[in-house]
Amino acid sequence: MMILIINGPNLNMLGKRNKNIYGINTYEELFESLKIWGLKNEIKLEIFQTNHEGKIIDRIQKDDFQALIINAGAYSHYSYAISDALEIIKKIKIEVHISNIYAREEFRHNSVISKNCNGVISGMGFDGYFMALDHIKKVLKGDF
Amino acid sequence: MMILIINGPNLNMLGKRNKNIYGINTYEELFESLKIWGLKNEIKLEIFQTNHEGKIIDRIQKDDFQALIINAGAYSHYSYAISDALEIIKKIKIEVHISNIYAREEFRHNSVISKNCNGVISGMGFDGYFMALDHIKKVLKGDF
Amino acid sequence: MMILIINGPNLNMLGKRNKNIYGINTYEELFESLKIWGLKNEIKLEIFQTNHEGKIIDRIQKDDFQALIINAGAYSHYSYAISDALEIIKKIKIEVHISNIYAREEFRHNSVISKNCNGVISGMGFDGYFMALDHIKKVLKGDF
Amino acid sequence: MMILIINGPNLNMLGKRNKNIYGINTYEELFESLKIWGLKNEIKLEIFQTNHEGKIIDRIQKDDFQALIINAGAYSHYSYAISDALEIIKKIKIEVHISNIYAREEFRHNSVISKNCNGVISGMGFDGYFMALDHIKKVLKGDF
Amino acid sequence: MMILIINGPNLNMLGKRNKNIYGINTYEELFESLKIWGLKNEIKLEIFQTNHEGKIIDRIQKDDFQALIINAGAYSHYSYAISDALEIIKKIKIEVHISNIYAREEFRHNSVISKNCNGVISGMGFDGYFMALDHIKKVLKGDF
Amino acid sequence: MMILIINGPNLNMLGKRNKNIYGINTYEELFESLKIWGLKNEIKLEIFQTNHEGKIIDRIQKDDFQALIINAGAYSHYSYAISDALEIIKKIKIEVHISNIYAREEFRHNSVISKNCNGVISGMGFDGYFMALDHIKKVLKGDF
Amino acid sequence: MMILIINGPNLNMLGKRNKNIYGINTYEELFESLKIWGLKNEIKLEIFQTNHEGKIIDRIQKDDFQALIINAGAYSHYSYAISDALEIIKKIKIEVHISNIYAREEFRHNSVISKNCNGVISGMGFDGYFMALDHIKKVLKGDF
Amino acid sequence: MMILIINGPNLNMLGKRNKNIYGINTYEELFESLKIWGLKNEIKLEIFQTNHEGKIIDRIQKDDFQALIINAGAYSHYSYAISDALEIIKKIKIEVHISNIYAREEFRHNSVISKNCNGVISGMGFDGYFMALDHIKKVLKGDF
Amino acid sequence: MMILIINGPNLNMLGKRNKNIYGINTYEELFESLKIWGLKNEIKLEIFQTNHEGKIIDRIQKDDFQALIINAGAYSHYSYAISDALEIIKKIKIEVHISNIYAREEFRHNSVISKNCNGVISGMGFDGYFMALDHIKKVLKGDF
Amino acid sequence: MMILIINGPNLNMLGKRNKNIYGINTYEELFESLKIWGLKNEIKLEIFQTNHEGKIIDRIQKDDFQALIINAGAYSHYSYAISDALEIIKKIKIEVHISNIYAREEFRHNSVISKNCNGVISGMGFDGYFMALDHIKKVLKGDF
Amino acid sequence: MMILIINGPNLNMLGKRNKNIYGINTYEELFESLKIWGLKNEIKLEIFQTNHEGKIIDRIQKDDFQALIINAGAYSHYSYAISDALEIIKKIKIEVHISNIYAREEFRHNSVISKNCNGVISGMGFDGYFMALDHIKKVLKGDF
Amino acid sequence: MMILIINGPNLNMLGKRNKNIYGINTYEELFESLKIWGLKNEIKLEIFQTNHEGKIIDRIQKDDFQALIINAGAYSHYSYAISDALEIIKKIKIEVHISNIYAREEFRHNSVISKNCNGVISGMGFDGYFMALDHIKKVLKGDF
Repeated sequence: MMILIINGPNLNMLGKRNKNIYGINTYEELFESLKIWGLKNEIKLEIFQTNHEGKIIDRIQKDDFQALIINAGAYSHYSYAISDALEIIKKIKIEVHISNIYAREEFRHNSVISKNCNGVISGMGFDGYFMALDHIKKVLKGDF
Repeated sequence: MMILIINGPNLNMLGKRNKNIYGINTYEELFESLKIWGLKNEIKLEIFQTNHEGKIIDRIQKDDFQALIINAGAYSHYSYAISDALEIIKKIKIEVHISNIYAREEFRHNSVISKNCNGVISGMGFDGYFMALDHIKKVLKGDF
Repeated sequence: MMILIINGPNLNMLGKRNKNIYGINTYEELFESLKIWGLKNEIKLEIFQTNHEGKIIDRIQKDDFQALIINAGAYSHYSYAISDALEIIKKIKIEVHISNIYAREEFRHNSVISKNCNGVISGMGFDGYFMALDHIKKVLKGDF
Repeated sequence: MMILIINGPNLNMLGKRNKNIYGINTYEELFESLKIWGLKNEIKLEIFQTNHEGKIIDRIQKDDFQALIINAGAYSHYSYAISDALEIIKKIKIEVHISNIYAREEFRHNSVISKNCNGVISGMGFDGYFMALDHIKKVLKGDF
Repeated sequence: MMILIINGPNLNMLGKRNKNIYGINTYEELFESLKIWGLKNEIKLEIFQTNHEGKIIDRIQKDDFQALIINAGAYSHYSYAISDALEIIKKIKIEVHISNIYAREEFRHNSVISKNCNGVISGMGFDGYFMALDHIKKVLKGDF
Repeated sequence: MMILIINGPNLNMLGKRNKNIYGINTYEELFESLKIWGLKNEIKLEIFQTNHEGKIIDRIQKDDFQALIINAGAYSHYSYAISDALEIIKKIKIEVHISNIYAREEFRHNSVISKNCNGVISGMGFDGYFMALDHIKKVLKGDF
Repeated sequence: MMILIINGPNLNMLGKRNKNIYGINTYEELFESLKIWGLKNEIKLEIFQTNHEGKIIDRIQKDDFQALIINAGAYSHYSYAISDALEIIKKIKIEVHISNIYAREEFRHNSVISKNCNGVISGMGFDGYFMALDHIKKVLKGDF
Repeated sequence: MMILIINGPNLNMLGKRNKNIYGINTYEELFESLKIWGLKNEIKLEIFQTNHEGKIIDRIQKDDFQALIINAGAYSHYSYAISDALEIIKKIKIEVHISNIYAREEFRHNSVISKNCNGVISGMGFDGYFMALDHIKKVLKGDF
Repeated sequence: MMILIINGPNLNMLGKRNKNIYGINTYEELFESLKIWGLKNEIKLEIFQTNHEGKIIDRIQKDDFQALIINAGAYSHYSYAISDALEIIKKIKIEVHISNIYAREEFRHNSVISKNCNGVISGMGFDGYFMALDHIKKVLKGDF
Repeated sequence: MMILIINGPNLNMLGKRNKNIYGINTYEELFESLKIWGLKNEIKLEIFQTNHEGKIIDRIQKDDFQALIINAGAYSHYSYAISDALEIIKKIKIEVHISNIYAREEFRHNSVISKNCNGVISGMGFDGYFMALDHIKKVLKGDF
Repeated sequence: MMILIINGPNLNMLGKRNKNIYGINTYEELFESLKIWGLKNEIKLEIFQTNHEGKIIDRIQKDDFQALIINAGAYSHYSYAISDALEIIKKIKIEVHISNIYAREEFRHNSVISKNCNGVISGMGFDGYFMALDHIKKVLKGDF
Repeated sequence: MMILIINGPNLNMLGKRNKNIYGINTYEELFESLKIWGLKNEIKLEIFQTNHEGKIIDRIQKDDFQALIINAGAYSHYSYAISDALEIIKKIKIEVHISNIYAREEFRHNSVISKNCNGVISGMGFDGYFMALDHIKKVLKGDF
């Protein structure tokens, strides 16, 4: 059982981005916390970050995971190519946004990938990833 | 410590609504599961359902809770009055939708209350409520 | 066999509203005529009027009728909550408007509840209700 | 006393069109049923079908009827020329659609001829024609 | 002679709402000041607040006043039902907004009830109510 | 030398159409006046009226005239097919409207054929045709 | 203490404009009434009318007043240049319209200068100016 | 009897503007030709050109003419202030454009002053002015 | 086996239309080439051209072909009536445009009939017809 | 002579994508069929697939081909960068889509690259590639 | 050799306008700096400021300069009349904005005069003028 | 001190792109001229070109420069991902376009990265880069 976590453009800059919106913690801290969750829950996690739209698609297409968490950053708002890639893969797919995208600029209110995910978590900070992981765990274990 | 859970119009019809979208479980089952979560976590929950926009506003205005979970149903998409009520109350506020509203009809893609909530959980089925509760618990306890 | 007739906001003001548009007859006259139709046709009618969106939803949810006629007044143009309530109830549902809404102000040209009704009758004056009743009678009796 | 019934493009294909939307009955069956109504009610009916926008306008302009029922098919959604023709003729004019156009594709939600008809009946199947006829009969006889 | 003052959703929260926009004074203070105006001017005032759209319509329909001041809060921006209720009542009707709605979020720039009021006062703080009252007094006394 | 005058749908109804907009004179009177102009000016005129879009195109394609005056009625607002026909013919082409289309309903403000005419005359009543004729005469005679 | 009253294009034509909308009184009568208010209230008023956008901006920029009342006429709906001029001047600024602009043509519903005024009074006839003056007086005197 | 001809911004540049669109003749040549028309027809003409929106309004308001021809240049497309000025004056008003504005850039397709003119002549070159003059002459002399 | 080829308005003018867009060859040349294809491939072709929307619909409804190639010219962009006719006929249907409609004026970018065709070929000149024929031949013969 | 075939994002997933839309055949099968066409026709083909927008642009810029076939997948709908790259290269360029994009979701109806291709083939399944190849062959050989 | 610098409405208020956006320096300081540049570079500069749209057009039309720098302030966003004036003059024309207009309110993102200037410099503060001057100098001297 | 110059997609094709728009000089010539500027001004320049959106983001994130000049080509119009990357980096950022994007196709009028740059230079040809460099030099040296 493996869960893939994809972080898109500029998420590696966490800690340097607008702190009122994204908080003070760094990407490395997120990375470490996710790893700890994996160890504690005995579930293999792959945590993948890239600024390249094409690499996100390449990674999704491997289809070597039981579930996928994706924070596609700004690509969420225009990458129909990523959206199509998600549509093809028939696994649990959760879209996560650290900030509440619906409370920010107009262009962030619409995510073109949401319709090809099972659900969306937005505005919960880093906890959004862990909420998604906990949810996936329940679903995969049939506890839900 | 009390958490208020508001369910808006037609959520009392769960179990009778389109099952492909909302699942087969009834509102009563959701109600019971939430109660159990409260007992287990030793947190007082008030679970409130109404079809009346005005009653949702009345209830929010009491401001007698530490956090609020709101699934405003169809009011999410046009009730600026509920949105204003939420804006006034400075507590943790989580918007929950059982179905993935971003994957449904165009009019459901925009929630006018999202911008006055801390975050949004959409498409996780009943688990959305429990994810919100778990998140609130962590925040209120300072674990996050 | 019972047919529910719901009249929404301001329909109780018939006789006082713009007479070029709504005619000179009062709501009471409509009420009486409907009652007579019921007696003559030996079909139980419940004639319900309210200005409250929530009460319309409450009434629809009871689901204690074989067919429903709804003139939701101005709510027709924005109440997705009423629309959702109608969607859930799998009975004959006819939308009626006394005036021809498609010949009036722009905002009245679109009814968000039409898609969840079987059909729409608009602009026939009070006769719209009787046309709906006659149609329902035919359908329920299998004459159509 | 004569009532003109105009059926526009593709209505002659009833029985061959999408049966979930239009039902299984053919145009000939509609034609026959209408004729029978005319005989029973001792009212002359002319039932006219054409796929040509210009012929619909030609026919309307004759102005040799006491009332008109028009199902302009797809022309309803863009033929301002038919709409203008209707505006000129000061008779009872009822727009009928077999299917509920407001529950179908976006382009069918707006009929440019509605504003020049007295009223609209949509979604009642073939009965829409008979409802219109019954209504016209009442109006012409002064029973309404 | 009676003047009805209707305050819609969330206006009872004055003093708790964003103070940069609404000022620091409470709804009770507004209520008291209005009462004093009534006493001083020997005009009966009824000051009515509700969060319920339907109750606003119910109250308007009583039509037991010479003039009406309405601050419909967020309902101003979508309640065609309230707008219709106002249209029916042929009295002096003044729309008041404490904040300057035209200087706030886009959705607040349009009030669907303005077209059925005689005039609008926006952005004058609590004084908007007294300006409206003074204006009504002049008009009712024929001083204007 | 021949000038073709095309009158589109419903122009044959002049005298019966809304007289505030189109005046009291009939199509026959227009026809006669045009004939007289032709005789007086010794220029052959063909005056053609049809309600059929296709016939307008057929007539234009003959290309047997030195100049063309077209009042396409309601087709002006959506017939790209007529517009294309005009584009092909490299003669003087004047669009005429009896009423001032820019002062009427929104849909009449845009004519899709204007861009393929040399010019437009709107709102001059029947004189619009004579103004166009006088202009064409000047141009064809090189007086302009 | 001086209050500047700016009247924009066509306001000098009051008495000649559509009387259903603007009333029968002339600009001169408005001018005289304003003067009397000034004398009675011992406040200097400058009453300025021009049809020139540039002159309105020139006048605003002098910034020699404690408060400003502006009825920018049709410029209200597109003059971002006047709007910018108002933004720069940090005085009390009230926008006044004699007619209820929100009840008229679509283009009059939006005023681009409103966001740079403290408030708006619309539809109160000439009294709008006096309401604005009374309000300013209260504010300047600290009575409000 | 006097006819006022108003030419708005950049029309004094005729002869220097894009010759494919406006022709090679200069404003002076237009001016002279118009004068000759006046002499020949024994009608006083005032030919007025300005680049100032305010001056156009000032000139219209004098209302010292029996008819008005206006080519408001680019102001046609946004000057609601000129449009209002025209609305007030109850004389014959003809809008003229040298080029066919409906065949040029999108923004030129809509003239906000058309609705307050009796008619529009567009694309006839300089002859548009003479066509308007001839038309006005006929109307004023009652020949039409 | 018969393949119907429908050419809509103005296609008979090929050779006279803008040659940069449509090429220099005439409709007759297209007609002859198509005939030759039919002979060579031993497949009956009917090549039908009309400027009349209604005749296109009439022809489609005959449903006496195994496949259909349609170039509806300008009707492609607004004829929902033709689109509906195509929807009813369950044969292979290919839409062809000689020019690349997506590279021309905005209004040509959308064809309302595309959704009821199996596919679209645009911009290949006359070869578009032969490509469609070759494709149909392969499909009908099961070679594809 | 070389023809380049570019397949964009997710086309390598053919066989796994929605089979109702894309058919059951795999990308490998398409690849093999294309190769066979090349061998049979003695024309060198390069068949290039990538999920990376930048790599598509890099490949186009090499400009080492006589003609190009491009199926840019979802990039078709927003990649102005690919569109610009195509514009620069002055070779035969054919856009191919396996499914009929005009019959699918709204966002797929517009391809921003179409205007920089010679033509478009949409909805012909895999045959679209061969139709494009046959067309190019004819053009390059001067047979067309 | 003369370069004309036009500053439109409210630019004379520099130093008083929002200092976060426009900086603290006054218009006089800008004026002096520009003069010094002229002296240093031995190029005659005319620095012209007005709040009047008409005066900007008058000044442009003189056409007595080799190059023009224009900061039309708010007129940039709606003055098609200024845009037309610029189009006529065939000199180097540079549009300058002190603030970055593309980073401010929506209405400032579009300048209707840009398309008639050679280029645009936005957001460089006062240096924008000097950058434009340096560029013009290079172009006029043929150094570029 | 280092200044980074980023050139996005298709800028490497300068010299081959439309010469009316981009001029005849090649990318190599631009590259050389920039290098010479660096040497002359003793400022280190890095000149970076790529067609890959992701690589532009990667490069920006290094944040190893004092200032940045970016010509993002077509990505300017949709890459919110690049825009976000720019927002994070708190250095001088100048957007440069060789052509005047505001005078070209509609889609090029809006750059989504402008709001995250200090300023924009558009339409100055290659000189745009040098103007940006000179400006940056002044700012970094405190000469401005």
